[in-house]
Amino acid sequence: MRYCFGVDVGGTTVKIGLFQTDGTIVDKWEIKTRREDSGSAVLPDIAESLKEKLAGHQIERDDVEGVGIGVPAPVNAEGIVRNSANIGWGYKEVKREMQELTGLSVEVGNDANVAALGEMWLGAGKGQKDLIMVTLGTGVGGGVIVDGRPIVGSGGAGGEIGHLCVNYEEEDRCGCGNRGCLEQYASATGIARLARIRLAKNDDDCALRKVSLEEVSAKTVFDALKEGDKVAEEIAEEFGAYLGHAMANLAAVTDPAVIVIGGGVSKAGEILLGYIEKNYQERAFFANKHTKFLLAELGNDAGICGAAKLVIDKAKR
Amino acid sequence: MRYCFGVDVGGTTVKIGLFQTDGTIVDKWEIKTRREDSGSAVLPDIAESLKEKLAGHQIERDDVEGVGIGVPAPVNAEGIVRNSANIGWGYKEVKREMQELTGLSVEVGNDANVAALGEMWLGAGKGQKDLIMVTLGTGVGGGVIVDGRPIVGSGGAGGEIGHLCVNYEEEDRCGCGNRGCLEQYASATGIARLARIRLAKNDDDCALRKVSLEEVSAKTVFDALKEGDKVAEEIAEEFGAYLGHAMANLAAVTDPAVIVIGGGVSKAGEILLGYIEKNYQERAFFANKHTKFLLAELGNDAGICGAAKLVIDKAKR
Repeated sequence: MRYCFGVDVGGTTVKIGLFQTDGTIVDKWEIKTRREDSGSAVLPDIAESLKEKLAGHQIERDDVEGVGIGVPAPVNAEGIVRNSANIGWGYKEVKREMQELTGLSVEVGNDANVAALGEMWLGAGKGQKDLIMVTLGTGVGGGVIVDGRPIVGSGGAGGEIGHLCVNYEEEDRCGCGNRGCLEQYASATGIARLARIRLAKNDDDCALRKVSLEEVSAKTVFDALKEGDKVAEEIAEEFGAYLGHAMANLAAVTDPAVIVIGGGVSKAGEILLGYIEKNYQERAFFANKHTKFLLAELGNDAGICGAAKLVIDKAKR
Repeated sequence: MRYCFGVDVGGTTVKIGLFQTDGTIVDKWEIKTRREDSGSAVLPDIAESLKEKLAGHQIERDDVEGVGIGVPAPVNAEGIVRNSANIGWGYKEVKREMQELTGLSVEVGNDANVAALGEMWLGAGKGQKDLIMVTLGTGVGGGVIVDGRPIVGSGGAGGEIGHLCVNYEEEDRCGCGNRGCLEQYASATGIARLARIRLAKNDDDCALRKVSLEEVSAKTVFDALKEGDKVAEEIAEEFGAYLGHAMANLAAVTDPAVIVIGGGVSKAGEILLGYIEKNYQERAFFANKHTKFLLAELGNDAGICGAAKLVIDKAKR
């Protein structure tokens, strides 16, 4: 039996999985992300943890294919990160350092791209090779898989779905400095923003007014939507139009078999997909109308799964 | 010395190149595309022509790496075309048929994707692995290269840059049935359309009025632009905004090192790039501002070069 590790480095915790290369999860656990001192302990902590687990499971290092790592930053083809504010890293040769620490083969990718790979391998996109994953959380992240491999890009900044411009008339700025980014409409904060703008327009009676304007959240909107609230429907339609149209554009270039919707916002469930898919179909190029929309299945495990897959695929090439 | 063939199948002629695998063109020629009888003679004609050339150059079949073919249709990963109106083909197993006809290894790709690969290998994008090529002709075609390989997509319809929606307010329809496609603004016909719309707005004096409204073409616009005509500048600015913004969106997902502009419209030269690049920079995500804009270098040879590269790369994997 062959094994590998999938590591998902976050700002608070590092999630780690020990996998058989057939996709079976043998063990998973977390360690703390020690961000102090520019995050210098992060990789040594992970290496130490992997070593302990190998001993615990009585697995020889020779039976380990390697270590895949997802990090919250652009990662170039050499496994180098230039800056990761979430972890405290500046310039960091993650792949080389981790190889030296573990003596194992290491592959590194951006966490959102890696999560998409996870959903392709063991989640909603199982069996597919062309897939888009959109993660609707505080922001909008994502990964685009083409022929089984994530789009990394020349500087490692590929897959920034949240910064597709979907509204050239927008006057408010996105966190990135531009105006009209998908993230301004489809993230949890974006949906809450759409709701506040809509609610400020008039004072018609609706379920969303049960809380104050400041307290309105994406959850408030989708809860009201499930109760059939008309204003929540308007907001969901607006959200669905921005996201659906953005996906139609992306599909014209990548022709995906499936688009997987994940992240906190996706907990609203199937009702969400309807709004996205309807608007997608309205705008999709005729050759892309076959694309299916699915909810993500792996939740927080997408990262460790995709990281493991990254190193398994590398070993095959 | 190792050799390979690059074949670019068009509706009127088939362009063919005999290459050394280092990129040297040994010979290039054309044969007629016989579209009659559902294009059934097209592949046998090509096979016959390759055989003659091998004999003429006294090259053994064992020294040939294979045959790459670009066709004007979506092509899936198995080298199957479902429909190519330009050639008369319906369902066609191009790869299998050509392998049987030649006894050589065959790779097949969409012509626009293949042309992008050609510019990457021997043209403006030499040395790069992440590149977008936009072909501004009667329509807008293109190819997106990620880590050295064209995006093909689940059904072979990847890289349809011309059908990115860039204007959600558009009321006129594109040939594809949608509204607001890039092709409606950035193709030769699209630029002429922008010009006619602009000229119909008022009757101010400008160089474009030297010809009748029906005769205004992309060339009229760019010729007037070079003379400093203000109305031509307005139209070029509008063209540049649509194309530059579309490229900024595409770059957010693919993070290209270079964007290559080719096709008939690109004969207007460097002046064109300025309008595109300015608008690109205005909208690009901060991590994609490094992308360079270049004019295509290979002209009509991009297809045969890229087709040859397709089969060389396949042999390496």
